[in-house]
Amino acid sequence: MMSAQDAPAGGARAAQPTIGIVGLGLIGGSFARAYAAAGARVVACDTDEDTMDAAMIETVEAVLDDEEIPGCDLIILAAYPDACIEWLEEHAEVLGAASAPEDGRGPVVIDTAGVKAAVCARAFELARAHGFAFVGAHPMAGTEHSGFAHARANLFQGAPMVLVPPALDDTARLHLLDRVHTLLAPVGFGTFSVTTPEEHDAVIAYTSQLAHVVSNAYVKSPTAREHHGFSAGSYRDLTRVAHLNPTMWAELMCDDAENLSREIGRIIDALAAYRDALDAGDRERLRALLAEGDRIKRALDDERDS
Amino acid sequence: MMSAQDAPAGGARAAQPTIGIVGLGLIGGSFARAYAAAGARVVACDTDEDTMDAAMIETVEAVLDDEEIPGCDLIILAAYPDACIEWLEEHAEVLGAASAPEDGRGPVVIDTAGVKAAVCARAFELARAHGFAFVGAHPMAGTEHSGFAHARANLFQGAPMVLVPPALDDTARLHLLDRVHTLLAPVGFGTFSVTTPEEHDAVIAYTSQLAHVVSNAYVKSPTAREHHGFSAGSYRDLTRVAHLNPTMWAELMCDDAENLSREIGRIIDALAAYRDALDAGDRERLRALLAEGDRIKRALDDERDS
Repeated sequence: MMSAQDAPAGGARAAQPTIGIVGLGLIGGSFARAYAAAGARVVACDTDEDTMDAAMIETVEAVLDDEEIPGCDLIILAAYPDACIEWLEEHAEVLGAASAPEDGRGPVVIDTAGVKAAVCARAFELARAHGFAFVGAHPMAGTEHSGFAHARANLFQGAPMVLVPPALDDTARLHLLDRVHTLLAPVGFGTFSVTTPEEHDAVIAYTSQLAHVVSNAYVKSPTAREHHGFSAGSYRDLTRVAHLNPTMWAELMCDDAENLSREIGRIIDALAAYRDALDAGDRERLRALLAEGDRIKRALDDERDS
Repeated sequence: MMSAQDAPAGGARAAQPTIGIVGLGLIGGSFARAYAAAGARVVACDTDEDTMDAAMIETVEAVLDDEEIPGCDLIILAAYPDACIEWLEEHAEVLGAASAPEDGRGPVVIDTAGVKAAVCARAFELARAHGFAFVGAHPMAGTEHSGFAHARANLFQGAPMVLVPPALDDTARLHLLDRVHTLLAPVGFGTFSVTTPEEHDAVIAYTSQLAHVVSNAYVKSPTAREHHGFSAGSYRDLTRVAHLNPTMWAELMCDDAENLSREIGRIIDALAAYRDALDAGDRERLRALLAEGDRIKRALDDERDS
């Protein structure tokens, strides 16, 4: 269903590209710093004036507006999902006028949202209707902290990048993915995967959203306030991502509600099995449940390492 | 209820102590290597002959038996809980004959089990009946790996140590804890906490056992097999301790069944609240649930850092 491949080596370019960035939070800010560090011209916009002022001092050369759009090689939408779609709706005409995707002319637009079905459905439609190039993208990197102040040029170094191209014939699809690979090369992603919006959202509900929900739920026990001096690495790991941006995650999770609800149901059922074994005083059944998880985890690690 | 204090500085001793160790797995083996590295005489026993052979080559100077017991300054029980109690029952008479705890004569015995109520109840009883010194102990360190081969001298460096002394008058209690501090100094624990068996088990069910159950349950979703190229740090952290020793953990968890069952119930209820908000399409309720966990986590981190 999906393929992972090594990142392209980058290679020399005739001229430094112009990169447009919408939203200068942790993700957009890190793209801005990475491209600026690589010598690209970075133009950007953000609804927060203080953020724009800070970014214009050191990283961003101009405001991304209708005049700048046609000169961009790549435009990265790094706002919340709804805001990305809004920006795209407002600028679809300008993007279309500047583009001839079949000739590779005009900016390639990518988003960076953590959900793909909701964003890509509308973005693919706009791109088709107005004739510009759009590829869904999800850089698998981040920290517990948000905002431009925490952005850093090396955030994506070695990280996985997941790409979701529109439905095109094979030649056009490969050509488009190749352009995106080349444009992203200066940022230093470790691997690229290509998948569909539906598969992306099913997997991400499990690997990322569920991890944040479980970690966030973990700290709600009253015992959390009594553990000083008693916690080792396992507690630290389980609760690390309990600290999160509630507004952003609520939007992402609601856009992927069906998949995430199913995964929460699965872990609730799995947890209930351990509790039932404990309540029954059945040590052998508990041992078998733990052994099953241990076996699955080792198989996953072996597969990953092979 | 409990107090944490800095580890004692150690200080010069008249002569190097003799340390007895029962069980040379990850924990017992790491104590053996830490004390041997510090120049102590280490005597030990293990039911596995290959382990004993390996340990006698490099770390252990003699077998811990009835002749060696009276010469030990500290005896560390590092087998599974049931096996620790068995060893103590078999050697209670020898320990008693070698001891005059009110004068500080004879070995101090500590265990290292991850549960304290079950182990301490019987051990305190044996110590009182036979007249030797016993203090419950739980070194908060470990790895996903088990066995002597993974033991290392620095496993406890900087780690928290939880001590559970018997019911004694304040003077005798402080004297006993002071002996244990001094004897453990070469191992390098970062902090010592003192608590009761009941409080220890309530806290550890949450910080350690629940973390292992949740991590072990996490990998049971069928989606776990489909995530290649898609997982970031949050998934890695949540699933790290899914790999565990099922036999040991089943025993520890069954000895602390009531506390652990209650904590599993609490996280199931907490998780169900997120699922209900998702199923209702109620983004604001989901945001409030996430914000609550984020607030608790930040408060815990602030408290820890203060």
